[in-house]
Amino acid sequence: MTKNLNVCLTPALLPLYNVEEYIVVVIDIFRATSSICYGIENGAEAIIPVSQVEECSAYREKGLDYLLAAERDGKVVDGFDFGNSPFSYTAEKVVGKTIVLTTTNGTHALHLSLSAKRIVIGSFLNLTALSNWLKTQHENILLVCAGWKNNFNLEDSLFAGAVIEQLKTEDFVLDDAAIAANDLFQLGKDDINLYLKKTSHGERLKKLGIEKDIEFCLQVDITTAIPVLEGERLVRLV
Amino acid sequence: MTKNLNVCLTPALLPLYNVEEYIVVVIDIFRATSSICYGIENGAEAIIPVSQVEECSAYREKGLDYLLAAERDGKVVDGFDFGNSPFSYTAEKVVGKTIVLTTTNGTHALHLSLSAKRIVIGSFLNLTALSNWLKTQHENILLVCAGWKNNFNLEDSLFAGAVIEQLKTEDFVLDDAAIAANDLFQLGKDDINLYLKKTSHGERLKKLGIEKDIEFCLQVDITTAIPVLEGERLVRLV
Repeated sequence: MTKNLNVCLTPALLPLYNVEEYIVVVIDIFRATSSICYGIENGAEAIIPVSQVEECSAYREKGLDYLLAAERDGKVVDGFDFGNSPFSYTAEKVVGKTIVLTTTNGTHALHLSLSAKRIVIGSFLNLTALSNWLKTQHENILLVCAGWKNNFNLEDSLFAGAVIEQLKTEDFVLDDAAIAANDLFQLGKDDINLYLKKTSHGERLKKLGIEKDIEFCLQVDITTAIPVLEGERLVRLV
Repeated sequence: MTKNLNVCLTPALLPLYNVEEYIVVVIDIFRATSSICYGIENGAEAIIPVSQVEECSAYREKGLDYLLAAERDGKVVDGFDFGNSPFSYTAEKVVGKTIVLTTTNGTHALHLSLSAKRIVIGSFLNLTALSNWLKTQHENILLVCAGWKNNFNLEDSLFAGAVIEQLKTEDFVLDDAAIAANDLFQLGKDDINLYLKKTSHGERLKKLGIEKDIEFCLQVDITTAIPVLEGERLVRLV
């Protein structure tokens, strides 16, 4: 069977796709989906992605043992436990916990994809585990790049290209965006960190003083968990 | 002065830009902007881009000596003189004439850009003439890819990358889309026709039997005219 392997370069282009015909992979390399992969790998019970900071705050009132994480414009929002730095998602901090998370781009992309057949989370951290699982699915696949405030960004597209690299031997039809993403990956793959240094987001994140986060998020295959959305919660796919 | 050199990968992303701060270059390589460049080069007095087929028809009623051109989904609309094949824009057909043109993607992108400081038309045909002129302007530049029904396509992005290649020694700040477009151009530049053969649009156009048009549209620097929008008419920039 011929399946489509498509890349949605920014959430602003999602209306062009019949999302309900796809398994969606949400991609926000710096840093939401990297941190989600790391947190689930490290034993977080679940991560609940919410759109608004207020929704995140509301969980505080519920009096339960939630960790609240809110990021806007690359910074932890005042009054929250943490944002989306992967170093906040270590085993000692998250094991057994449920984290409520809102971010500038990643949770936005996820919420726009809710009608998908299934939503999973991708990052360089779980690249091969994710790709291997995708190979076993007999569905169209849409790689949704979270971008930056609806703008195209290179790091998310490059990762989409890395997934395509692992899948393209299979029976998939690629759209132009998938071809482009994969070609960009070919250019960047030998030193992704170096390649991304020239990008706008790299500059922006550097100003925020999170180079260590960036380095962390570009590690390939250090995790094997695939976070999947079940109801409103991201949990480990079993 | 630092200027922005940005690429809008599809018209669906135009709302992300303050178009009024830019000179906009509209790009629809297969085939609208290639044909516009060729028609203006060959002595067409003006080309009037309109959004709807009905607007185009309306010019027939005006009883004047207009050539009416309408294309949808790659084909000439029934009842029209011609569509957007460059071979309809030869000197013998267009010299001294005013052409009213509506196309699937190109005129759409143009109309969304109307608030720009200036709108000019780009294609491989006038690549260097256009780039040289852009170098003399002290303005931000937005390269608007018409795409295919708001989807990203490779041929328009590749051309954006070709323009950037000529401008990037200048004092421009590139966004991620501009970096990506230029990188894709690096991959394709040695044989653009071959590179584009793998794209979806290439397949689509091949089915329409217009390989000769495609070959024509990928000729570099065979024209020097720069079509510019004056009021509602595209005319030769002087």
